[in-house]
Amino acid sequence: MFSAELKSDTLKGLVNIISTLIDEVKFTITADGMTLKAVDAAHVAMIEMHVNKGAFESYSAEDTELGLDLDKVKSVLKLAGSGEVIKMEQDDNTGKLVFKIGNITRCMSLIDTSGMNDPKVPQLNLSANILVPVEELQKGIRAAESISDHITLKAGPEFFELSCEGDTDSVSLKLEKDAAKIDAESDVCSMFPPEYLANIIKAIPSGTQVNIELDSDYPVKLLFSLADGAVTVDYLLAPRIESE
Amino acid sequence: MFSAELKSDTLKGLVNIISTLIDEVKFTITADGMTLKAVDAAHVAMIEMHVNKGAFESYSAEDTELGLDLDKVKSVLKLAGSGEVIKMEQDDNTGKLVFKIGNITRCMSLIDTSGMNDPKVPQLNLSANILVPVEELQKGIRAAESISDHITLKAGPEFFELSCEGDTDSVSLKLEKDAAKIDAESDVCSMFPPEYLANIIKAIPSGTQVNIELDSDYPVKLLFSLADGAVTVDYLLAPRIESE
Amino acid sequence: MFSAELKSDTLKGLVNIISTLIDEVKFTITADGMTLKAVDAAHVAMIEMHVNKGAFESYSAEDTELGLDLDKVKSVLKLAGSGEVIKMEQDDNTGKLVFKIGNITRCMSLIDTSGMNDPKVPQLNLSANILVPVEELQKGIRAAESISDHITLKAGPEFFELSCEGDTDSVSLKLEKDAAKIDAESDVCSMFPPEYLANIIKAIPSGTQVNIELDSDYPVKLLFSLADGAVTVDYLLAPRIESE
Repeated sequence: MFSAELKSDTLKGLVNIISTLIDEVKFTITADGMTLKAVDAAHVAMIEMHVNKGAFESYSAEDTELGLDLDKVKSVLKLAGSGEVIKMEQDDNTGKLVFKIGNITRCMSLIDTSGMNDPKVPQLNLSANILVPVEELQKGIRAAESISDHITLKAGPEFFELSCEGDTDSVSLKLEKDAAKIDAESDVCSMFPPEYLANIIKAIPSGTQVNIELDSDYPVKLLFSLADGAVTVDYLLAPRIESE
Repeated sequence: MFSAELKSDTLKGLVNIISTLIDEVKFTITADGMTLKAVDAAHVAMIEMHVNKGAFESYSAEDTELGLDLDKVKSVLKLAGSGEVIKMEQDDNTGKLVFKIGNITRCMSLIDTSGMNDPKVPQLNLSANILVPVEELQKGIRAAESISDHITLKAGPEFFELSCEGDTDSVSLKLEKDAAKIDAESDVCSMFPPEYLANIIKAIPSGTQVNIELDSDYPVKLLFSLADGAVTVDYLLAPRIESE
Repeated sequence: MFSAELKSDTLKGLVNIISTLIDEVKFTITADGMTLKAVDAAHVAMIEMHVNKGAFESYSAEDTELGLDLDKVKSVLKLAGSGEVIKMEQDDNTGKLVFKIGNITRCMSLIDTSGMNDPKVPQLNLSANILVPVEELQKGIRAAESISDHITLKAGPEFFELSCEGDTDSVSLKLEKDAAKIDAESDVCSMFPPEYLANIIKAIPSGTQVNIELDSDYPVKLLFSLADGAVTVDYLLAPRIESE
């Protein structure tokens, strides 16, 4: 049993984040909310999302799993205006998920989740911790796109830097302690594939504070929340280790 | 002799409607206004449009015919801002149609109308009659596009429904008596090709009330008016009869 | 030595104008400002631009040359919001040009200017002189695009006309003395390639008054200024002489 109502903007935010990694997803449903753990096809990035029932206008569920094709959900989202409420209910007879938006009823078949195992989320202890408005990261990403090589993230006790070095040109976003909350005992530095970083950072809604956990030649972790804290996202991206 | 002035928005509205069906059209001109009857190349849909001289800022004409290439008229419309007045006048010497917009003069050759016969508009007596704001139809059409099969229109004494059934998914717009004015003695139902319905419904300006005349396995008729009633449109679309 | 700050809108305006002709440019820098003389690859049009140091928020330079790839500069402009100040400084050690926008630093390699000679700007004495708001020219150009043949510019003591004649259709923008300041003793007329005229006229910011110098079968000169007169542009376009 699953029945819930939520604002179209909230659902859109979740779908935008998840679909940077993967199109077919499994949500694990409990009475308290929904959880998703997903890894992309190339096993480069991983996302863990918790949607507390407080993110919904109304929520009523028993333990179950929902397998969703996000492209279909996106087509539903196009039918809802900003601020409009979307009602979702699983049909007990057909097992399909029924969306209601105003006078529209959209009946969607689900994906079989029996073969979809949750990825194991690694426990990491990363030494540097930076809190930064997503708008700054988005500016850095846009700047890096004109160079289009790997992206380096660096942090030290007094700074955080996102940079990109080409053959002849380079670009960097450098934030001092006044523009970001920085907690790093020593300098750390890792390189990352630019498309992954660009896609996730562009998908984060403006106004969001992003917590970056970083270490040298380790994965980076982006942590942020949506819907006034009712949705939390952990995004983990593997580093690109330069071969010698 | 033909000389008229009209607002660019009015001309744009007419052209958008007609060009869902056909690009080269014949307008029959009288002292009272213009009439157009046109059928699309596949003979699936038909349009009958009456433009009363009240739709114009000024109008002066004798009986004649104007053969227009709507793509050329669209290029003229791009030169006019919203609310700007377009002056049209047929040149007595060359027979060409001269458009004037501000300081711009656009001289357009006409299409030979001698081979363009008016289609015969069938007389239909359709039992169900529904009056609905075009915005609701536009929502239903957008929803149907994610399924992309034929569209079914249904009506009964208490409801009107636009629906679309795919192999696994389905979508419907259902309007009760409070959201539409419904006059149907019994249930009726017909299927239609989605592109035709989508194109005409998207071309109708928002704020328009559309009168739908419907019966079982019969054509559907959409009737609506533009320019405060000075333009009336009858649009007729053949049903898709399912073979067994 | 070159160090300057200017508003992103000013830099964008300059780049838009120049890149209608050429992508790789040489700026000649002095203590008073920057100068550019460029001709397009087909030697059909020529631009001469003077950027007085008054166009900058701050300016400090010794005599030098800067070779710029405008596509790279455009990618920098995308990082700056409207009204934002862009700082440019040549790095004494690397010779590269460093752009700073907010927390972003963009280091750009320059083009070797040793083989880039300034074109010789011909001295012309054109008899007709017309001052016209660029918006009128832009309307005329948009109208001409639906005909897509060569464009004719004509002027006489009482009028200025931009026209375009196709096989069956034609279009013209005609300005009387009230809509343009006209100084012509006799009628003059020249034809021009439409793409060149369209590109430069579309690139001129709205609100600009354009001075057109015209004669019969001679190049046309467009003169205008940007940034409150601190930037002056002379644009010269060769006529298309019809062979008989």
